Amino acid sequence: MSSKKAVVLISGGLDSTTALAMARSEGYACYTISFDYGQRHKVELLAAELTSKAMGALEHKVIHLDLRTIGGSALTDDSIAVPEQETQGIPVTYVPARNTVFLSIALGWAEVLGAEDIFIGVNAVDFSGYPDCRPDYIAAYETMANLATRVGAEGGKLRIRTPLIDLSKAQIIQKGLALGVDYGLTVSCYQANIKGEACGKCDSCRLRRTGFEQAGIADPTRYFS
Amino acid sequence: MSSKKAVVLISGGLDSTTALAMARSEGYACYTISFDYGQRHKVELLAAELTSKAMGALEHKVIHLDLRTIGGSALTDDSIAVPEQETQGIPVTYVPARNTVFLSIALGWAEVLGAEDIFIGVNAVDFSGYPDCRPDYIAAYETMANLATRVGAEGGKLRIRTPLIDLSKAQIIQKGLALGVDYGLTVSCYQANIKGEACGKCDSCRLRRTGFEQAGIADPTRYFS
Repeated sequence: MSSKKAVVLISGGLDSTTALAMARSEGYACYTISFDYGQRHKVELLAAELTSKAMGALEHKVIHLDLRTIGGSALTDDSIAVPEQETQGIPVTYVPARNTVFLSIALGWAEVLGAEDIFIGVNAVDFSGYPDCRPDYIAAYETMANLATRVGAEGGKLRIRTPLIDLSKAQIIQKGLALGVDYGLTVSCYQANIKGEACGKCDSCRLRRTGFEQAGIADPTRYFS
Repeated sequence: MSSKKAVVLISGGLDSTTALAMARSEGYACYTISFDYGQRHKVELLAAELTSKAMGALEHKVIHLDLRTIGGSALTDDSIAVPEQETQGIPVTYVPARNTVFLSIALGWAEVLGAEDIFIGVNAVDFSGYPDCRPDYIAAYETMANLATRVGAEGGKLRIRTPLIDLSKAQIIQKGLALGVDYGLTVSCYQANIKGEACGKCDSCRLRRTGFEQAGIADPTRYFS
């Protein structure tokens, strides 16, 4: 087993599972982290646990942080509906500062583990237009992270790794299949039901379904409608 | 009441209470946020609530996030003792990525509130040598925050305000007294007891006590030893 450690943020969805597979294929000992943040689609946490085990992560941690206390998103406020058609601009499913919060907790764990790499499955091609998925955001985060921490202050170098950032959804799927990902275990839907079945209508479902079509791969997603 | 809103991170200690007083004196409508993160000195949360009310904050939010899950600090791991003498380098009371995590949750709340200013009472003069208190860290955080969020993406500008960063502890105390802060309500000690009494020996107590001496002000701190 390599001594190179990485913390991998996983949501149980297609992208982050592929990012985990890519980190493993680079020889990292992987420590996965998921967030129980009050999301509608809490079933994704079960998927995260399953995919984490399936991909050989050494440890999986679930952090409890109720972002409903803050609200401001269709994913954390039941009074805001998840849109089932495409919308303009930053959609209401955007959770304020979510990736920044999640990366920051992952950063703390990376310091404790002595891991210098943090993998996050953000993507700037087939994505929902969230500001915290853009390459310049990630670059700025990495700069900040190195100033924030012991490892950076003592001459080390933390890296925020985004292996999916320039890939289309179809390319992500092809990459993952080549690495043995079972996408049947993953849940991407913003309003997945308790059985992990998807609506097929939300932004996340639409991007995922089109990805399988464009990759020429049978879609393993279970839909409830 | 001004419509200019600010989120102010408060710990119940001397520094953050003074930062709150300064934000109020600039006319901000203040929304205070504290973190129940599994710290030893949990009594500081009571102090945060009291000082928040005393200084006229409009709302005080306590976020629950158990950083003991991650550990790695004398403040979040009972097996690591709080040092009672000065140490070299970054001390064991450093909590990995703490300010980054706290600022990120504050950032999320600021987005929801429509606040463009976040106040944090970090100080780079009489401080413990934590990497996440340095001016270049704060500047990098602000750059990242503007790329991370809706407000930044839509042409607004978020500011991370650090009014104490260049002040000595004595200057902070003088500033706060001029603005009506009751330091008797504040708790700085890393191992304060349940009554809010301080040890007088930890790094935080030493910096605080010296601050009152240098300011020529009677120290209102209640010590248990």
